[in-house]
Amino acid sequence: MQIKEIGGEFALIDRLSRLVPSRCRELIVGIGDDAAVLKTADDGRYQLVTADLLVENQHFSFSWGGAEEAGFKAVEANVSDIAAMGGEPTVMVVSLALPRETPVETAEALYRGMGRSCRRNGVTVVGGDTTRGGAITISITLLGTVAVDRLCLRSQARVGDLIGVTGPLGASAAGLALVQRDLPATAYLWQKHLVPECRLDAAPILAPVVNAMIDVSDGLAPEVRHICDQSGVGARIAAAKIPLHPEVIAAAVALGCDPLEFALGGGEDYELLFTLAPRNLERLRRTGLEFAVVGEILPAADGLLLVGASGAAGPLHGGYNHFA
Amino acid sequence: MQIKEIGGEFALIDRLSRLVPSRCRELIVGIGDDAAVLKTADDGRYQLVTADLLVENQHFSFSWGGAEEAGFKAVEANVSDIAAMGGEPTVMVVSLALPRETPVETAEALYRGMGRSCRRNGVTVVGGDTTRGGAITISITLLGTVAVDRLCLRSQARVGDLIGVTGPLGASAAGLALVQRDLPATAYLWQKHLVPECRLDAAPILAPVVNAMIDVSDGLAPEVRHICDQSGVGARIAAAKIPLHPEVIAAAVALGCDPLEFALGGGEDYELLFTLAPRNLERLRRTGLEFAVVGEILPAADGLLLVGASGAAGPLHGGYNHFA
Repeated sequence: MQIKEIGGEFALIDRLSRLVPSRCRELIVGIGDDAAVLKTADDGRYQLVTADLLVENQHFSFSWGGAEEAGFKAVEANVSDIAAMGGEPTVMVVSLALPRETPVETAEALYRGMGRSCRRNGVTVVGGDTTRGGAITISITLLGTVAVDRLCLRSQARVGDLIGVTGPLGASAAGLALVQRDLPATAYLWQKHLVPECRLDAAPILAPVVNAMIDVSDGLAPEVRHICDQSGVGARIAAAKIPLHPEVIAAAVALGCDPLEFALGGGEDYELLFTLAPRNLERLRRTGLEFAVVGEILPAADGLLLVGASGAAGPLHGGYNHFA
Repeated sequence: MQIKEIGGEFALIDRLSRLVPSRCRELIVGIGDDAAVLKTADDGRYQLVTADLLVENQHFSFSWGGAEEAGFKAVEANVSDIAAMGGEPTVMVVSLALPRETPVETAEALYRGMGRSCRRNGVTVVGGDTTRGGAITISITLLGTVAVDRLCLRSQARVGDLIGVTGPLGASAAGLALVQRDLPATAYLWQKHLVPECRLDAAPILAPVVNAMIDVSDGLAPEVRHICDQSGVGARIAAAKIPLHPEVIAAAVALGCDPLEFALGGGEDYELLFTLAPRNLERLRRTGLEFAVVGEILPAADGLLLVGASGAAGPLHGGYNHFA
């Protein structure tokens, strides 16, 4: 049976996770959130664990960017998962598979990029594995901690919550789409694709105030869907309120598509998406953090809706499936 | 520059580790031992972190064994690293890259094998990543803990220590060599290659008694070399004392080679290699644990020696280099 026949990546993860022991006394949250949460840190904190596997020509390509950029982005993506839990990253292990003919300089550039992101985010590399493989493969496992009363889960959205996001969406996908079609990408769009910076800065401001939180790695639509699935709620997103950078709109014009597609399904923006009780809106505004309210949480029976510019509501679509 | 030009895997790791932050307050032991050691667990214990990356047709091949065996072995190899520190495994994250056409049944078999090893060793799978790639790639990060006074490092060998090993060596490599030459492997040899069981059972018996410890994943010679490098000592191994199973000797006869080659450089035996003060020898014998004394630790100036059956000593050679 093919993976796409059972419904792709998430259906596969669901099947596979039933074949291994997945519960223990120390585990607060396991497979299914941005990071696992463990009751093993001291001082009123939980431990966080997240992992990512990146394969050349699937997740990054040296024909577009350099190895240093790929290394930087790989670490940012993992720190983003820790930030989405309200936490702080601590230590990281890196496993690297390299084809035999990989120049030492390429491996060094990868590590320089990882080092730059590690320093930016206060991460220490404590180990890993380096071996041979057919394609350059970067596997990162990042640990972190979060204060027990600051932990933010995908499952904590409540009916009536507002849905917010920390910045404009779609720039990474728009930049990539331009380059894939041999059109020039602006520096802003291309930087957002090659070396996106995650929002670890926003996490400690958001964590005391928000209910659910997730990072935007696969696009707005699938992230809202994850929150709704795990919280047992529905949601309505207002298309007109989704923050779009003018250059994303210009890219959509050049490509003859709807800029919302980049925001809803493009992914790799690494902004934080959160839900918030309306009574906390003013409190969050007073922090000075920039964010946009893009919708609200509804009862599960209402489903997932996107309200267009005309005011008509349709289903919320979009998002990347690795095995579609 | 090619990786082999700078000296292969270990030279590369040394270069790369200088490009990322690799020290922090919580880190007791970083890159270079079987697992990293962190001061972040409570109750007088340290946290351990180890990782492995396995690529199809480099580290395992479905033309010889099944996916279930590959999954089992991948987890055993990581548990072996935790055992070598004197610790116990706790939770694991698995990242998996699968070619688009991978049958769901193959992924499930991999996980069934991982599950079997996890249950055997008390490990819980708490997360990971599943994505597309050109070759099946399994990346495992395993956490564990060790009592502060039970931690065993590669760097703790002392001149005068005896060198011991928990069981016969070379069976995995002998089984593989037979199959690679289209010769029949006995069930014992083939099982030792496909589904080796690590020695987590021996770790709590050894940890209170031994000085240095390491697991035999790359062969006896390179593991002795790791201990000597990190302890600043030399060693003498007596060829006649290296435990060899009769079927390893028979395999060497069939293949026309020296059975010691399998033990010294073959790897993937996952026995534990340790150094021990002579005064603790009797104490270890009284535990009932089976082991063999194969040599002794010398001053660094004596180098690494192998004493043959004739009594003549030569340099200790052998071992696998991923980029040679």
